[in-house]
Amino acid sequence: MVILYGWHTVKTALENPQRRIRRLLMTENAARRLATDGIDLKLKPEVVRPDEIAKLLSPDAVHNGVLAHADPLPPTELEDIEGDIVLALDQITDPHNVGAILRTAAAFAVSAVVTTARHSPEATGVLAKAASGALELVPMVAVQNLARALDHLRERGYLLAGLDSSGEHDLDAAALRAPLGLVMGAEGKGLRQLTRATCDMLLRIDLPGQVKSLNVSNAAALALYVASRKLRSS
Amino acid sequence: MVILYGWHTVKTALENPQRRIRRLLMTENAARRLATDGIDLKLKPEVVRPDEIAKLLSPDAVHNGVLAHADPLPPTELEDIEGDIVLALDQITDPHNVGAILRTAAAFAVSAVVTTARHSPEATGVLAKAASGALELVPMVAVQNLARALDHLRERGYLLAGLDSSGEHDLDAAALRAPLGLVMGAEGKGLRQLTRATCDMLLRIDLPGQVKSLNVSNAAALALYVASRKLRSS
Repeated sequence: MVILYGWHTVKTALENPQRRIRRLLMTENAARRLATDGIDLKLKPEVVRPDEIAKLLSPDAVHNGVLAHADPLPPTELEDIEGDIVLALDQITDPHNVGAILRTAAAFAVSAVVTTARHSPEATGVLAKAASGALELVPMVAVQNLARALDHLRERGYLLAGLDSSGEHDLDAAALRAPLGLVMGAEGKGLRQLTRATCDMLLRIDLPGQVKSLNVSNAAALALYVASRKLRSS
Repeated sequence: MVILYGWHTVKTALENPQRRIRRLLMTENAARRLATDGIDLKLKPEVVRPDEIAKLLSPDAVHNGVLAHADPLPPTELEDIEGDIVLALDQITDPHNVGAILRTAAAFAVSAVVTTARHSPEATGVLAKAASGALELVPMVAVQNLARALDHLRERGYLLAGLDSSGEHDLDAAALRAPLGLVMGAEGKGLRQLTRATCDMLLRIDLPGQVKSLNVSNAAALALYVASRKLRSS
């Protein structure tokens, strides 16, 4: 079971035919807004006061008057991945970061996000909120062994480019082509040794300032921006 | 008074000669680590258990065993700003976002961040944590009237480029030059009408995917990445 809350998150879930909703709580205001937007609610909502939603969430959660209990999406298998850009996350666990990455991935038409992390229902709620609806749009493929998954993608023609502060090529100058697998490591730890060895190339982002590392979702945004432009013009 | 917590945040504050620390709480472990790193503590720390730091913060705050009470930094005036890139934030209030932007600004050697928002001591703590030390590195200039501040920057030679989803130029194709003022609006609301009218040009980020907007710190990272490369090669 996953807990979805927040306007974009729940609205996009209601619009996703693949997403099975089990329970729907909303304020009168939110119900009116969804009706105005012509959203099919799938099941009869429980109309409640805002604090009845708030008490189901952590104190700083912004729910916008909507909360849903839902089934997880049907799993996507590695074999089902196709498309020009795939993102792989090597032990990135923080749900805020993973959610933010998912949102940016959806903006850059990423086909799938391969991840080594599994999230609890609560963490999935935080992730879904940070993803602002993108959890419904970009398939997440959870794998036990990232190196093996990357090998599988390479066999299917993917060029594997890892982002690493000690990378040999500047992201800007790298020769990228489709289909492409971009591999991101966790902040601080970076890519694991085996992940690094499995990549076809390691790319660094040159930073001119005093701070020499970026938040991982910002680094992913830069990599996706540069890669999507390179792939379009190649 | 501001509350600073988290390893990078407090360490960078201790290294900043401009930052006056009033009280310093740390665990034995953190004290040892700071000593190993050769950091001058400025004043005698109170060595405490981790939970004594945790109870001063919100439940999800990651403090890494260090917390400081400090004075705000001496204010930077608009007149004191110089350098190739300045970032201006039009009513971006969320301290997580402002902190993340500050960190990325420090990575891209931004000279100053002009902001319309003032943060409470608690919000400043959240901002400083998200900035991961960058609050000590990039001067924040708080202004009452952003349009007037932008006019002032233009008079001093700054080209003012606003990021806006309906911008006339693609960020990638825009003719940018130093000194440059990049202006970002809040998510959802975007730039206010007067801010938009005050900019010399409005830039959009073309997104090929289903999601048509980025998290504001990701958008700022893209703008800074592209701008810093354009300014270097111009």
